[in-house]
Amino acid sequence: MKKMPKALKDYTPLELRHLIRKGDYSGQTSGLAAGYTQANLVIIPRELAYDFLLFTQRNPAPCPVLEVSDVGSRKLKDFGTDVDLANDFPKYRIYRKGEVAEETTSIADFWRKDLISFLLGCSFSFEAELITAGIEVRNITQHTNVPMFNTNIPLKEAGIFHGNMVVSMRPIPEEQVIKAVKVTAAMPRVHGAPIQIGNPERIGIKNLQKPDYGEAVAIKPGEVPVFWPCGVTPQNVIMQIKTDFVITHAPGHMLVTDIKNSELKY
Amino acid sequence: MKKMPKALKDYTPLELRHLIRKGDYSGQTSGLAAGYTQANLVIIPRELAYDFLLFTQRNPAPCPVLEVSDVGSRKLKDFGTDVDLANDFPKYRIYRKGEVAEETTSIADFWRKDLISFLLGCSFSFEAELITAGIEVRNITQHTNVPMFNTNIPLKEAGIFHGNMVVSMRPIPEEQVIKAVKVTAAMPRVHGAPIQIGNPERIGIKNLQKPDYGEAVAIKPGEVPVFWPCGVTPQNVIMQIKTDFVITHAPGHMLVTDIKNSELKY
Repeated sequence: MKKMPKALKDYTPLELRHLIRKGDYSGQTSGLAAGYTQANLVIIPRELAYDFLLFTQRNPAPCPVLEVSDVGSRKLKDFGTDVDLANDFPKYRIYRKGEVAEETTSIADFWRKDLISFLLGCSFSFEAELITAGIEVRNITQHTNVPMFNTNIPLKEAGIFHGNMVVSMRPIPEEQVIKAVKVTAAMPRVHGAPIQIGNPERIGIKNLQKPDYGEAVAIKPGEVPVFWPCGVTPQNVIMQIKTDFVITHAPGHMLVTDIKNSELKY
Repeated sequence: MKKMPKALKDYTPLELRHLIRKGDYSGQTSGLAAGYTQANLVIIPRELAYDFLLFTQRNPAPCPVLEVSDVGSRKLKDFGTDVDLANDFPKYRIYRKGEVAEETTSIADFWRKDLISFLLGCSFSFEAELITAGIEVRNITQHTNVPMFNTNIPLKEAGIFHGNMVVSMRPIPEEQVIKAVKVTAAMPRVHGAPIQIGNPERIGIKNLQKPDYGEAVAIKPGEVPVFWPCGVTPQNVIMQIKTDFVITHAPGHMLVTDIKNSELKY
Protein backbone atom coordinates (compact mmCIF):
# COMPACT_ATOMS: atom_id res chain seq x y z
CA MET A 1 0.00 0.00 0.00
CA LYS A 2 1.11 3.53 -0.76
CA LYS A 3 1.96 5.58 2.30
CA MET A 4 -0.38 8.56 2.57
CA PRO A 5 1.07 11.89 3.67
CA LYS A 6 0.09 12.76 7.21
CA ALA A 7 -2.94 15.06 7.38
CA LEU A 8 -2.31 18.49 8.92
CA LYS A 9 -4.98 17.90 11.53
CA ASP A 10 -3.06 14.86 12.81
CA TYR A 11 0.17 16.81 13.49
CA THR A 12 1.15 17.25 17.12
CA PRO A 13 1.54 20.84 18.35
CA LEU A 14 5.33 20.51 18.16
CA GLU A 15 5.23 19.09 14.62
CA LEU A 16 2.96 21.95 13.56
CA ARG A 17 5.25 24.57 15.07
CA HIS A 18 8.27 23.04 13.31
CA LEU A 19 6.38 23.04 9.99
CA ILE A 20 5.36 26.67 10.48
CA ARG A 21 8.83 27.65 11.69
CA LYS A 22 10.40 26.27 8.49
CA GLY A 23 7.96 28.38 6.46
CA ASP A 24 6.08 25.35 5.10
CA TYR A 25 2.65 26.43 6.46
CA SER A 26 1.26 29.95 6.74
CA GLY A 27 -2.49 29.34 6.89
CA GLN A 28 -5.10 29.64 9.62
CA THR A 29 -4.88 27.30 12.60
CA SER A 30 -8.58 26.74 13.31
CA GLY A 31 -9.21 23.02 13.86
CA LEU A 32 -5.51 22.07 13.92
CA ALA A 33 -4.11 19.94 16.77
CA ALA A 34 -7.59 19.41 18.14
CA GLY A 35 -7.82 19.67 21.92
CA TYR A 36 -4.72 21.86 22.29
CA THR A 37 -4.90 25.48 23.37
CA GLN A 38 -4.17 28.12 20.76
CA ALA A 39 -3.01 31.58 21.75
CA ASN A 40 -3.33 35.20 20.62
CA LEU A 41 -0.17 37.35 20.56
CA VAL A 42 0.60 40.94 21.52
CA ILE A 43 4.27 42.00 21.45
CA ILE A 44 5.11 45.42 22.88
CA PRO A 45 8.26 47.25 23.99
CA ARG A 46 9.32 47.08 27.65
CA GLU A 47 8.44 50.75 28.24
CA LEU A 48 4.72 50.01 27.71
CA ALA A 49 4.73 46.59 29.35
CA TYR A 50 3.72 47.61 32.89
CA ASP A 51 0.70 49.54 31.68
CA PHE A 52 -0.31 46.73 29.33
CA LEU A 53 0.10 44.00 31.95
CA LEU A 54 -1.94 46.09 34.38
CA PHE A 55 -4.55 46.61 31.65
CA THR A 56 -4.88 42.82 31.28
CA GLN A 57 -5.05 42.40 35.06
CA ARG A 58 -7.90 44.92 35.21
CA ASN A 59 -9.71 43.45 32.18
CA PRO A 60 -9.16 39.69 32.47
CA ALA A 61 -12.31 38.67 30.58
CA PRO A 62 -11.38 40.22 27.20
CA CYS A 63 -7.61 40.00 27.90
CA PRO A 64 -6.91 36.67 29.65
CA VAL A 65 -3.12 36.31 29.93
CA LEU A 66 -1.85 32.77 29.47
CA GLU A 67 1.86 33.58 29.64
CA VAL A 68 4.24 36.54 29.41
CA SER A 69 7.74 36.03 28.00
CA ASP A 70 10.85 37.37 29.67
CA VAL A 71 12.11 40.67 28.21
CA GLY A 72 13.75 40.06 24.83
CA SER A 73 13.13 36.32 24.96
CA ARG A 74 11.57 34.47 22.03
CA LYS A 75 10.87 31.42 24.20
CA LEU A 76 8.07 30.27 26.51
CA LYS A 77 8.27 28.24 29.70
CA ASP A 78 4.73 27.05 30.46
CA PHE A 79 2.77 26.70 27.21
CA GLY A 80 5.50 25.10 25.13
CA THR A 81 9.12 24.09 25.59
CA ASP A 82 10.29 24.17 21.97
CA VAL A 83 8.84 27.50 20.83
CA ASP A 84 10.25 30.36 18.73
CA LEU A 85 7.82 33.24 19.17
CA ALA A 86 9.32 35.02 16.15
CA ASN A 87 8.56 32.17 13.72
CA ASP A 88 5.95 29.79 15.18
CA PHE A 89 2.84 31.83 14.35
CA PRO A 90 1.86 31.26 10.69
CA LYS A 91 1.39 35.00 10.14
CA TYR A 92 2.10 38.25 12.00
CA ARG A 93 1.00 41.84 11.72
CA ILE A 94 3.35 44.76 12.33
CA TYR A 95 1.49 47.84 13.60
CA ARG A 96 3.05 51.31 13.41
CA LYS A 97 1.14 54.26 14.93
CA GLY A 98 -1.98 52.10 15.08
CA GLU A 99 -1.92 51.10 11.40
CA VAL A 100 -1.07 47.67 9.95
CA ALA A 101 2.30 48.43 8.29
CA GLU A 102 2.82 44.89 6.99
CA GLU A 103 1.99 41.21 7.31
CA THR A 104 4.79 38.66 7.47
CA THR A 105 5.39 34.98 8.27
CA SER A 106 8.47 35.72 10.40
CA ILE A 107 9.31 38.61 12.71
CA ALA A 108 12.94 37.56 13.24
CA ASP A 109 14.10 40.65 11.33
CA PHE A 110 11.96 42.91 13.52
CA TRP A 111 13.12 41.45 16.81
CA ARG A 112 14.49 43.78 19.48
CA LYS A 113 15.94 43.16 22.91
CA ASP A 114 13.25 45.29 24.57
CA LEU A 115 10.26 43.31 23.23
CA ILE A 116 7.92 41.34 25.49
CA SER A 117 5.37 38.81 24.22
CA PHE A 118 1.94 38.46 25.79
CA LEU A 119 0.11 35.23 25.01
CA LEU A 120 -3.65 35.62 25.45
CA GLY A 121 -6.38 32.99 25.60
CA CYS A 122 -8.48 32.38 22.48
CA SER A 123 -12.14 31.43 22.03
CA PHE A 124 -11.10 28.42 19.89
CA SER A 125 -10.63 26.68 23.26
CA PHE A 126 -14.16 27.21 24.51
CA GLU A 127 -15.76 26.60 21.11
CA ALA A 128 -14.30 23.09 21.20
CA GLU A 129 -15.85 22.56 24.64
CA LEU A 130 -19.24 23.90 23.48
CA ILE A 131 -19.26 21.39 20.63
CA THR A 132 -18.28 18.58 22.99
CA ALA A 133 -21.25 19.61 25.14
CA GLY A 134 -23.57 19.19 22.16
CA ILE A 135 -23.96 22.89 21.35
CA GLU A 136 -23.61 23.90 17.70
CA VAL A 137 -21.15 26.73 17.07
CA ARG A 138 -22.66 28.46 14.06
CA ASN A 139 -19.48 30.09 12.74
CA ILE A 140 -17.79 26.68 12.69
CA THR A 141 -20.79 25.05 10.97
CA GLN A 142 -20.77 27.89 8.42
CA HIS A 143 -16.96 27.77 8.01
CA THR A 144 -16.77 31.51 8.60
CA ASN A 145 -14.96 33.74 11.08
CA VAL A 146 -17.00 34.51 14.22
CA PRO A 147 -18.92 37.84 14.08
CA MET A 148 -17.42 40.47 16.40
CA PHE A 149 -18.83 43.82 17.47
CA ASN A 150 -17.68 47.04 19.08
CA THR A 151 -19.69 47.79 22.23
CA ASN A 152 -20.34 50.61 24.66
CA ILE A 153 -18.89 48.54 27.54
CA PRO A 154 -16.01 50.61 28.94
CA LEU A 155 -12.76 48.86 29.81
CA LYS A 156 -10.89 49.73 32.98
CA GLU A 157 -8.05 52.09 32.08
CA ALA A 158 -4.38 51.43 32.81
CA GLY A 159 -1.89 54.13 31.85
CA ILE A 160 -2.26 54.84 28.14
CA PHE A 161 -4.54 51.85 27.55
CA HIS A 162 -8.28 52.48 27.42
CA GLY A 163 -11.31 51.92 25.21
CA ASN A 164 -14.43 49.79 24.90
CA MET A 165 -14.76 46.02 24.86
CA VAL A 166 -15.10 44.02 21.64
CA VAL A 167 -17.42 41.01 21.89
CA SER A 168 -17.96 37.91 19.78
CA MET A 169 -21.50 36.61 19.15
CA ARG A 170 -22.78 33.06 18.81
CA PRO A 171 -26.49 32.27 18.37
CA ILE A 172 -27.54 29.58 20.87
CA PRO A 173 -30.90 27.75 21.04
CA GLU A 174 -32.82 29.18 23.99
CA GLU A 175 -32.93 25.84 25.79
CA GLN A 176 -29.11 25.51 25.59
CA VAL A 177 -28.18 28.99 26.82
CA ILE A 178 -27.71 27.95 30.43
CA LYS A 179 -25.49 25.05 29.40
CA ALA A 180 -23.44 27.42 27.22
CA VAL A 181 -22.95 29.76 30.19
CA LYS A 182 -21.86 26.87 32.42
CA VAL A 183 -19.40 25.41 29.90
CA THR A 184 -17.69 28.73 29.18
CA ALA A 185 -17.82 30.03 32.77
CA ALA A 186 -15.62 27.06 33.68
CA MET A 187 -12.89 28.43 31.37
CA PRO A 188 -12.02 31.92 32.67
CA ARG A 189 -8.55 31.75 31.07
CA VAL A 190 -10.18 31.78 27.64
CA HIS A 191 -12.71 34.63 28.20
CA GLY A 192 -15.08 32.71 30.50
CA ALA A 193 -18.83 33.34 30.75
CA PRO A 194 -20.81 35.53 28.34
CA ILE A 195 -21.14 39.24 29.15
CA GLN A 196 -24.61 39.70 27.60
CA ILE A 197 -27.46 37.42 26.61
CA GLY A 198 -30.21 38.35 24.19
CA ASN A 199 -30.08 42.15 24.29
CA PRO A 200 -27.55 43.55 21.80
CA GLU A 201 -28.89 47.14 22.03
CA ARG A 202 -28.10 47.18 25.75
CA ILE A 203 -24.39 47.02 24.87
CA GLY A 204 -24.60 49.35 21.90
CA ILE A 205 -24.95 46.86 19.07
CA LYS A 206 -27.42 48.05 16.42
CA ASN A 207 -27.38 45.41 13.67
CA LEU A 208 -26.37 41.79 14.24
CA GLN A 209 -26.01 41.27 10.49
CA LYS A 210 -23.31 43.95 10.27
CA PRO A 211 -20.44 42.87 12.49
CA ASP A 212 -17.46 45.23 12.92
CA TYR A 213 -15.03 42.31 12.44
CA GLY A 214 -15.45 38.76 11.11
CA GLU A 215 -18.56 37.65 9.25
CA ALA A 216 -22.30 37.62 9.97
CA VAL A 217 -23.95 34.30 10.87
CA ALA A 218 -27.56 33.19 10.52
CA ILE A 219 -29.73 33.45 13.64
CA LYS A 220 -32.53 30.88 13.46
CA PRO A 221 -35.97 31.08 15.12
CA GLY A 222 -35.71 30.09 18.79
CA GLU A 223 -32.06 31.13 19.00
CA VAL A 224 -30.71 33.84 21.28
CA PRO A 225 -27.63 35.94 20.45
CA VAL A 226 -25.05 35.38 23.19
CA PHE A 227 -22.07 37.74 23.55
CA TRP A 228 -18.63 36.86 24.94
CA PRO A 229 -15.66 39.14 25.75
CA CYS A 230 -13.35 38.91 22.73
CA GLY A 231 -9.59 38.67 22.26
CA VAL A 232 -9.72 41.29 19.50
CA THR A 233 -10.19 43.83 22.31
CA PRO A 234 -6.48 44.48 23.00
CA GLN A 235 -5.63 44.78 19.29
CA ASN A 236 -8.51 47.19 18.86
CA VAL A 237 -7.29 49.28 21.80
CA ILE A 238 -3.74 49.33 20.41
CA MET A 239 -5.03 50.56 17.05
CA GLN A 240 -7.19 53.25 18.63
CA ILE A 241 -4.53 54.71 20.93
CA LYS A 242 -2.00 54.54 18.06
CA THR A 243 1.00 53.11 19.91
CA ASP A 244 4.28 53.51 17.98
CA PHE A 245 5.19 49.85 17.44
CA VAL A 246 3.28 46.68 18.22
CA ILE A 247 3.37 43.19 16.72
CA THR A 248 0.40 40.82 16.84
CA HIS A 249 -0.55 37.55 15.18
CA ALA A 250 -2.72 37.85 12.06
CA PRO A 251 -6.37 37.01 12.90
CA GLY A 252 -6.93 33.25 12.95
CA HIS A 253 -3.18 32.54 12.69
CA MET A 254 -2.52 31.42 16.25
CA LEU A 255 0.25 29.73 18.19
CA VAL A 256 -0.54 26.06 18.78
CA THR A 257 0.63 25.34 22.32
CA ASP A 258 1.49 22.11 24.15
CA ILE A 259 -1.25 22.65 26.76
CA LYS A 260 -4.60 20.93 26.40
CA ASN A 261 -7.83 22.93 26.60
CA SER A 262 -8.92 20.66 29.43
CA GLU A 263 -6.02 21.99 31.53
CA LEU A 264 -7.47 25.51 31.27
CA LYS A 265 -10.73 24.47 32.88
CA TYR A 266 -11.62 25.66 36.29
CA MET B 1 -32.42 52.41 78.78
CA LYS B 2 -28.82 53.39 78.41
CA LYS B 3 -27.53 53.32 74.86
CA MET B 4 -24.77 50.72 74.48
CA PRO B 5 -21.74 51.63 72.35
CA LYS B 6 -21.74 49.81 69.04
CA ALA B 7 -19.61 46.64 69.05
CA LEU B 8 -16.63 46.72 66.69
CA LYS B 9 -17.83 43.58 64.95
CA ASP B 10 -21.05 45.38 63.95
CA TYR B 11 -19.25 48.21 62.15
CA THR B 12 -19.60 48.38 58.38
CA PRO B 13 -16.38 48.27 56.33
CA LEU B 14 -16.60 52.04 55.75
CA GLU B 15 -17.19 52.78 59.45
CA LEU B 16 -14.21 50.60 60.35
CA ARG B 17 -11.96 52.34 57.83
CA HIS B 18 -13.00 55.77 59.16
CA LEU B 19 -12.29 54.62 62.73
CA ILE B 20 -8.88 53.27 61.72
CA ARG B 21 -8.13 56.35 59.58
CA LYS B 22 -8.74 58.65 62.56
CA GLY B 23 -6.27 56.57 64.59
CA ASP B 24 -8.94 55.20 66.95
CA TYR B 25 -8.27 51.52 66.20
CA SER B 26 -4.91 49.87 65.47
CA GLY B 27 -5.60 46.21 66.31
CA GLN B 28 -5.96 43.07 64.22
CA THR B 29 -8.89 42.82 61.84
CA SER B 30 -9.68 39.08 62.10
CA GLY B 31 -13.43 38.61 62.55
CA LEU B 32 -14.31 42.25 61.85
CA ALA B 33 -17.01 43.14 59.29
CA ALA B 34 -17.91 39.50 58.87
CA GLY B 35 -18.51 38.46 55.27
CA TYR B 36 -16.39 41.25 53.75
CA THR B 37 -13.10 40.62 51.97
CA GLN B 38 -9.94 41.70 53.73
CA ALA B 39 -6.77 42.41 51.78
CA ASN B 40 -2.99 42.11 52.15
CA LEU B 41 -0.83 45.06 51.05
CA VAL B 42 2.47 45.36 49.19
CA ILE B 43 3.57 48.88 48.20
CA ILE B 44 6.59 49.18 45.92
CA PRO B 45 8.16 51.89 43.77
CA ARG B 46 7.21 52.15 40.10
CA GLU B 47 10.63 50.93 38.93
CA LEU B 48 9.97 47.47 40.44
CA ALA B 49 6.27 47.35 39.59
CA TYR B 50 6.45 45.53 36.25
CA ASP B 51 8.56 42.72 37.66
CA PHE B 52 6.33 42.43 40.72
CA LEU B 53 3.08 42.44 38.71
CA LEU B 54 4.56 39.79 36.41
CA PHE B 55 5.63 37.81 39.49
CA THR B 56 2.02 37.81 40.73
CA GLN B 57 0.76 36.86 37.25
CA ARG B 58 3.13 33.88 37.21
CA ASN B 59 2.34 32.87 40.79
CA PRO B 60 -1.37 33.58 41.23
CA ALA B 61 -1.99 30.99 43.94
CA PRO B 62 0.28 32.53 46.62
CA CYS B 63 -0.03 36.07 45.15
CA PRO B 64 -3.66 36.59 44.04
CA VAL B 65 -4.01 40.24 43.01
CA LEU B 66 -7.33 41.81 43.93
CA GLU B 67 -6.52 45.34 42.77
CA VAL B 68 -3.54 47.51 41.81
CA SER B 69 -3.67 51.25 42.49
CA ASP B 70 -2.69 53.86 39.93
CA VAL B 71 0.87 55.18 40.32
CA GLY B 72 1.06 57.54 43.30
CA SER B 73 -2.62 57.15 44.12
CA ARG B 74 -3.78 56.37 47.66
CA LYS B 75 -7.26 55.42 46.39
CA LEU B 76 -8.93 52.29 45.08
CA LYS B 77 -11.64 51.92 42.44
CA ASP B 78 -13.02 48.39 42.78
CA PHE B 79 -12.67 47.19 46.37
CA GLY B 80 -13.72 50.41 48.10
CA THR B 81 -14.75 53.89 47.05
CA ASP B 82 -13.82 55.80 50.22
CA VAL B 83 -10.34 54.43 50.91
CA ASP B 84 -7.07 56.06 51.98
CA LEU B 85 -4.40 53.41 51.47
CA ALA B 86 -1.96 55.40 53.62
CA ASN B 87 -4.21 55.34 56.71
CA ASP B 88 -6.90 52.66 56.42
CA PHE B 89 -4.77 49.68 57.46
CA PRO B 90 -4.50 49.53 61.28
CA LYS B 91 -0.76 48.94 61.12
CA TYR B 92 1.99 49.02 58.49
CA ARG B 93 5.56 47.78 58.22
CA ILE B 94 8.29 49.76 56.48
CA TYR B 95 10.98 47.49 55.03
CA ARG B 96 14.42 48.81 54.12
CA LYS B 97 16.92 46.44 52.47
CA GLY B 98 14.73 43.50 53.47
CA GLU B 99 14.57 44.42 57.19
CA VAL B 100 11.57 45.78 59.11
CA ALA B 101 12.74 49.36 59.77
CA GLU B 102 9.59 50.37 61.65
CA GLU B 103 5.92 49.73 62.34
CA THR B 104 3.45 52.59 62.10
CA THR B 105 -0.30 53.23 61.99
CA SER B 106 0.00 55.74 59.11
CA ILE B 107 2.31 55.88 56.13
CA ALA B 108 1.22 59.37 55.05
CA ASP B 109 4.69 60.71 55.94
CA PHE B 110 6.36 58.03 53.82
CA TRP B 111 4.20 58.57 50.75
CA ARG B 112 5.91 59.17 47.43
CA LYS B 113 4.55 59.89 43.97
CA ASP B 114 6.21 56.76 42.53
CA LEU B 115 4.54 54.26 44.89
CA ILE B 116 2.08 51.62 43.68
CA SER B 117 -0.15 49.58 46.02
CA PHE B 118 -0.90 45.92 45.35
CA LEU B 119 -3.91 44.51 47.22
CA LEU B 120 -3.68 40.73 47.54
CA GLY B 121 -6.32 38.21 48.59
CA CYS B 122 -6.24 36.86 52.15
CA SER B 123 -7.12 33.44 53.58
CA PHE B 124 -9.56 35.11 56.04
CA SER B 125 -11.99 34.97 53.10
CA PHE B 126 -11.82 31.21 52.58
CA GLU B 127 -11.67 30.42 56.31
CA ALA B 128 -15.09 32.05 56.65
CA GLU B 129 -16.40 29.84 53.84
CA LEU B 130 -14.89 26.69 55.40
CA ILE B 131 -16.69 27.44 58.66
CA THR B 132 -19.94 28.09 56.80
CA ALA B 133 -19.47 24.65 55.18
CA GLY B 134 -19.26 23.05 58.63
CA ILE B 135 -15.47 22.62 58.68
CA GLU B 136 -13.66 23.67 61.86
CA VAL B 137 -10.73 26.03 61.31
CA ARG B 138 -8.38 25.07 64.14
CA ASN B 139 -6.46 28.35 64.34
CA ILE B 140 -9.74 30.23 64.74
CA THR B 141 -11.01 27.78 67.39
CA GLN B 142 -7.68 28.15 69.23
CA HIS B 143 -7.63 31.96 68.80
CA THR B 144 -4.12 31.80 67.38
CA ASN B 145 -2.49 32.88 64.13
CA VAL B 146 -2.46 30.18 61.43
CA PRO B 147 0.79 28.12 61.28
CA MET B 148 2.85 28.93 58.17
CA PHE B 149 5.86 27.11 56.76
CA ASN B 150 8.67 27.68 54.29
CA THR B 151 8.66 24.99 51.59
CA ASN B 152 10.87 23.64 48.80
CA ILE B 153 8.22 24.59 46.19
CA PRO B 154 9.97 26.96 43.78
CA LEU B 155 8.11 30.05 42.59
CA LYS B 156 8.27 31.15 38.98
CA GLU B 157 10.82 33.95 38.69
CA ALA B 158 10.06 37.42 37.32
CA GLY B 159 12.95 39.89 37.09
CA ILE B 160 14.48 40.26 40.55
CA PHE B 161 11.65 38.37 42.26
CA HIS B 162 12.24 34.70 43.08
CA GLY B 163 12.15 32.27 46.00
CA ASN B 164 10.09 29.43 47.44
CA MET B 165 6.41 29.36 48.35
CA VAL B 166 5.18 29.83 51.91
CA VAL B 167 2.15 27.71 52.85
CA SER B 168 -0.40 27.83 55.64
CA MET B 169 -1.58 24.60 57.31
CA ARG B 170 -4.98 23.65 58.65
CA PRO B 171 -5.71 20.18 60.08
CA ILE B 172 -8.90 18.80 58.52
CA PRO B 173 -10.78 15.60 59.49
CA GLU B 174 -10.07 13.02 56.81
CA GLU B 175 -13.74 12.73 55.84
CA GLN B 176 -13.96 16.51 55.24
CA VAL B 177 -10.82 16.94 53.13
CA ILE B 178 -12.64 16.71 49.79
CA LYS B 179 -15.19 19.28 50.92
CA ALA B 180 -12.36 21.59 52.03
CA VAL B 181 -10.74 21.28 48.59
CA LYS B 182 -14.04 22.04 46.83
CA VAL B 183 -14.85 25.07 49.00
CA THR B 184 -11.44 26.69 48.59
CA ALA B 185 -10.97 25.70 44.92
CA ALA B 186 -14.04 27.85 44.21
CA MET B 187 -12.15 30.92 45.52
CA PRO B 188 -9.03 31.26 43.33
CA ARG B 189 -8.78 34.99 44.11
CA VAL B 190 -8.00 34.14 47.74
CA HIS B 191 -5.40 31.37 47.15
CA GLY B 192 -7.82 28.69 45.91
CA ALA B 193 -7.32 24.94 46.36
CA PRO B 194 -4.68 23.37 48.64
CA ILE B 195 -1.26 22.65 47.15
CA GLN B 196 -0.51 19.58 49.29
CA ILE B 197 -2.55 17.15 51.35
CA GLY B 198 -1.14 14.92 54.08
CA ASN B 199 2.55 14.78 53.12
CA PRO B 200 4.50 17.69 54.65
CA GLU B 201 7.92 16.11 53.96
CA ARG B 202 7.14 16.10 50.24
CA ILE B 203 7.24 19.90 50.28
CA GLY B 204 10.19 20.19 52.65
CA ILE B 205 8.37 20.61 55.97
CA LYS B 206 10.10 18.68 58.77
CA ASN B 207 8.13 19.48 61.92
CA LEU B 208 4.49 20.59 61.94
CA GLN B 209 4.81 21.77 65.53
CA LYS B 210 7.53 24.27 64.58
CA PRO B 211 6.02 26.66 62.04
CA ASP B 212 8.26 29.32 60.48
CA TYR B 213 5.56 31.97 61.02
CA GLY B 214 2.39 32.06 63.13
CA GLU B 215 1.70 29.52 65.84
CA ALA B 216 1.44 25.73 65.98
CA VAL B 217 -2.01 24.13 66.21
CA ALA B 218 -3.07 20.76 67.60
CA ILE B 219 -3.56 17.96 65.06
CA LYS B 220 -6.07 15.43 66.42
CA PRO B 221 -6.29 11.71 65.54
CA GLY B 222 -8.07 11.25 62.21
CA GLU B 223 -7.06 14.69 60.97
CA VAL B 224 -4.89 15.34 57.92
CA PRO B 225 -2.61 18.39 57.56
CA VAL B 226 -3.73 20.36 54.52
CA PHE B 227 -1.47 23.05 53.00
CA TRP B 228 -2.58 26.15 51.10
CA PRO B 229 -0.51 28.73 49.18
CA CYS B 230 -0.02 31.64 51.58
CA GLY B 231 -0.09 35.42 51.25
CA VAL B 232 3.08 35.71 53.33
CA THR B 233 4.93 34.49 50.22
CA PRO B 234 5.45 37.91 48.59
CA GLN B 235 6.59 39.51 51.86
CA ASN B 236 9.00 36.64 52.40
CA VAL B 237 10.40 37.07 48.88
CA ILE B 238 10.81 40.81 49.41
CA MET B 239 12.74 40.21 52.62
CA GLN B 240 14.97 37.61 51.03
CA ILE B 241 15.92 39.59 47.95
CA LYS B 242 16.44 42.71 50.13
CA THR B 243 14.68 45.32 48.01
CA ASP B 244 15.54 48.88 49.02
CA PHE B 245 12.13 50.13 50.13
CA VAL B 246 8.83 48.31 50.48
CA ILE B 247 5.77 48.95 52.65
CA THR B 248 3.39 46.17 53.69
CA HIS B 249 0.57 45.83 56.21
CA ALA B 250 1.53 44.35 59.59
CA PRO B 251 0.45 40.68 59.76
CA GLY B 252 -3.22 40.35 60.68
CA HIS B 253 -3.80 44.11 60.24
CA MET B 254 -5.68 44.07 56.96
CA LEU B 255 -7.72 46.46 54.84
CA VAL B 256 -11.43 45.80 55.26
CA THR B 257 -12.93 46.24 51.79
CA ASP B 258 -16.47 46.90 50.56
CA ILE B 259 -16.58 43.63 48.56
CA LYS B 260 -18.23 40.57 50.05
CA ASN B 261 -16.38 37.23 50.11
CA SER B 262 -19.24 35.72 48.16
CA GLU B 263 -18.37 38.02 45.23
CA LEU B 264 -14.91 36.43 45.03
CA LYS B 265 -16.33 32.98 44.46
CA TYR B 266 -15.95 31.30 41.14
